[in-house]
Amino acid sequence: MTQHIPGEGESRLARGRRALAEIDGEAGHAVVAALADIAPDFATYLFEFPFGDIYSRPGLDLRAREIATIAALTAMGNAAPQLRVHIEAGLNVGLTRQEITETIMQMAVYAGFPAALNGLFAAKEVFARRFPPQGGSAEGSLSAS
Amino acid sequence: MTQHIPGEGESRLARGRRALAEIDGEAGHAVVAALADIAPDFATYLFEFPFGDIYSRPGLDLRAREIATIAALTAMGNAAPQLRVHIEAGLNVGLTRQEITETIMQMAVYAGFPAALNGLFAAKEVFARRFPPQGGSAEGSLSAS
Amino acid sequence: MTQHIPGEGESRLARGRRALAEIDGEAGHAVVAALADIAPDFATYLFEFPFGDIYSRPGLDLRAREIATIAALTAMGNAAPQLRVHIEAGLNVGLTRQEITETIMQMAVYAGFPAALNGLFAAKEVFARRFPPQGGSAEGSLSAS
Amino acid sequence: MTQHIPGEGESRLARGRRALAEIDGEAGHAVVAALADIAPDFATYLFEFPFGDIYSRPGLDLRAREIATIAALTAMGNAAPQLRVHIEAGLNVGLTRQEITETIMQMAVYAGFPAALNGLFAAKEVFARRFPPQGGSAEGSLSAS
Amino acid sequence: MTQHIPGEGESRLARGRRALAEIDGEAGHAVVAALADIAPDFATYLFEFPFGDIYSRPGLDLRAREIATIAALTAMGNAAPQLRVHIEAGLNVGLTRQEITETIMQMAVYAGFPAALNGLFAAKEVFARRFPPQGGSAEGSLSAS
Amino acid sequence: MTQHIPGEGESRLARGRRALAEIDGEAGHAVVAALADIAPDFATYLFEFPFGDIYSRPGLDLRAREIATIAALTAMGNAAPQLRVHIEAGLNVGLTRQEITETIMQMAVYAGFPAALNGLFAAKEVFARRFPPQGGSAEGSLSAS
Repeated sequence: MTQHIPGEGESRLARGRRALAEIDGEAGHAVVAALADIAPDFATYLFEFPFGDIYSRPGLDLRAREIATIAALTAMGNAAPQLRVHIEAGLNVGLTRQEITETIMQMAVYAGFPAALNGLFAAKEVFARRFPPQGGSAEGSLSAS
Repeated sequence: MTQHIPGEGESRLARGRRALAEIDGEAGHAVVAALADIAPDFATYLFEFPFGDIYSRPGLDLRAREIATIAALTAMGNAAPQLRVHIEAGLNVGLTRQEITETIMQMAVYAGFPAALNGLFAAKEVFARRFPPQGGSAEGSLSAS
Repeated sequence: MTQHIPGEGESRLARGRRALAEIDGEAGHAVVAALADIAPDFATYLFEFPFGDIYSRPGLDLRAREIATIAALTAMGNAAPQLRVHIEAGLNVGLTRQEITETIMQMAVYAGFPAALNGLFAAKEVFARRFPPQGGSAEGSLSAS
Repeated sequence: MTQHIPGEGESRLARGRRALAEIDGEAGHAVVAALADIAPDFATYLFEFPFGDIYSRPGLDLRAREIATIAALTAMGNAAPQLRVHIEAGLNVGLTRQEITETIMQMAVYAGFPAALNGLFAAKEVFARRFPPQGGSAEGSLSAS
Repeated sequence: MTQHIPGEGESRLARGRRALAEIDGEAGHAVVAALADIAPDFATYLFEFPFGDIYSRPGLDLRAREIATIAALTAMGNAAPQLRVHIEAGLNVGLTRQEITETIMQMAVYAGFPAALNGLFAAKEVFARRFPPQGGSAEGSLSAS
Repeated sequence: MTQHIPGEGESRLARGRRALAEIDGEAGHAVVAALADIAPDFATYLFEFPFGDIYSRPGLDLRAREIATIAALTAMGNAAPQLRVHIEAGLNVGLTRQEITETIMQMAVYAGFPAALNGLFAAKEVFARRFPPQGGSAEGSLSAS
């Protein structure tokens, strides 16, 4: 599990592409693809600033960065698709499902119960897709995430 | 540095009082005192739910909990006094100044540059009070926090 | 029509369960059920703090409490499912449809026309389900709510 | 205590002026005066739409209207001056201090503890100005509001 | 392409109806129709204040007004239907698709990348409906908008 | 009056520094200086992304870009310092005071009257500093801006 994205000597764009792929996975690719015919430059900015600049910085590991992002998107409550992407990203960088649900529940204190409830239901949806509850699902148990 | 607030067998109120004192320190007491003549029951709720219930839960350590709170309050941008309290709380539970500023800077991605700038200036104010830059300030250096 | 939820001597959880059932009705049960496999403790908190503590307090009757909640959720504009639940809750505690639409329309002044429009369309949806327009619908008339 | 602002046959502007004076009192006049040299037409709109149209409507009394407004402004958390004006307006139309603080506390559920705390401190400030705690203050007691 | 809505001597309602039809087109009619059975007076307010008063003012042309509205609705992120209406309204008053996407992309700076992404995807949807990509689509090219 | 910031061949940082100086003027320098001892890298990002990337793009002139920013910051209502900077920036790139106040007033429709009022009072403060009303103030008249 990578804890930050090294990348001295690499361009911001290359470093950002690599970080986006590692953190957001498939969901990140889908966003970039969807931008192609409406605002392709925006995909470049998305690689460069959030991923090439911010997520690639030392000083805070990716697990902490995803906790921060999940907390903020839950609290703001107006970016449901991005919250789902980052719940998945949290799993990608090594957060447990419990760490994710604890982060979301805590938002009830700062942004109210509706924000926390909507965040929990987003997590439920992502977890169900990622850990499908098929027979003998030891992999689906909490300890597996 | 405590990583979560144990407290089986203790009342929510007692556990919450202890957690608030440990996490928020002086600033927490000031808030509770200020509530005394306008809404004393609200001080009880503040002890019980955020601190007695949420911050006392296992599954996410206090450092991660403060990262989540600092991220959310920076992103929401409408709770300046509470953001300052939690920047201080972050220091109280062992976050470095760098971890706090990284968390705040990252909010530029999710809530825009104004939110991040206002968060950074709140941190600057808290750090200046907590680590006054007077002569021989080894304690004021980044490594000390 | 109950105007507040008495409950001295009862536990917060028991009082909260009772209040949630009375105020939110079926919709409240659905939320609690949906939490079971993602964050069951959060259902407990939902019973205890909002319903066991806040809605059970004297000093403001349930009709006024639902006006406050409908106003806030309309104005915030980022909690559509909860707004629908509370429009229904407003009917449950005795608000007329007119009182609900007046509250929502007023939010145009404080949160803008889009927030009010989205609130009115939420109300339209809830009212249509609750008062289906079948033939000779005296029950569907304004005076019936 | 007026429960709504009648005004058939009166112009929206005249009705709005009257409603603003009755509801917001001095604070309303101050806002209008401050607009004179920057956007005088906006003062006209303020009389006409919020006060001449909305607050003058039947179907919801002024006490309920002020509960809705105090709830929304507390929850939004980004309009401190207007929240203070409407806490005072709440007193003007007959809300008790307890009804106002109950409304604000309830917002902890929907918009988080910081929003409720900032609302309570706004109320504390307004109540202190309106009910100064000097000797023999029968008028300052809760029952007087 | 009208740059503002003249209308001396006309009633606010008549002027507003005309402005709404010209700016919002079909989408505006749909909103008004949907209000008929829930809050018909609100349709009148919608004609009168936003369209009869604000959009009819001189001093800022309709293209600039739609840039302002698209920027605000993108940044707020909680009014998706109205954002789509105003992206279409922007096209109606003569904004190019490029001007609209530039406005939305800029919101990444002030309200974060999720707000800008959601705005761009709303624009993509509106543009696809308005400029369907059928064979030899000179009409679908950027220069056509 | 520059309508966009050309800069092919220049680095993002150099282009951003130049754009920030031209658009924000003194206020921009003050923000960058204030970041020096808390988060110097953030000043670099501020030059690079908002100013080197976004404001330097063709396709929307600087007057339209400032209208968008003033609209968004007024509507969000949680970034008062940045709103004042951009009201001044609007004047710097050639917006008239009337265009600025029209933009702000329009936000009453989308974000409510409190947001518009707070925006107008921010404009009043900036205009008073920029166009001090001393004797024979032809420069202070509306036509001069």
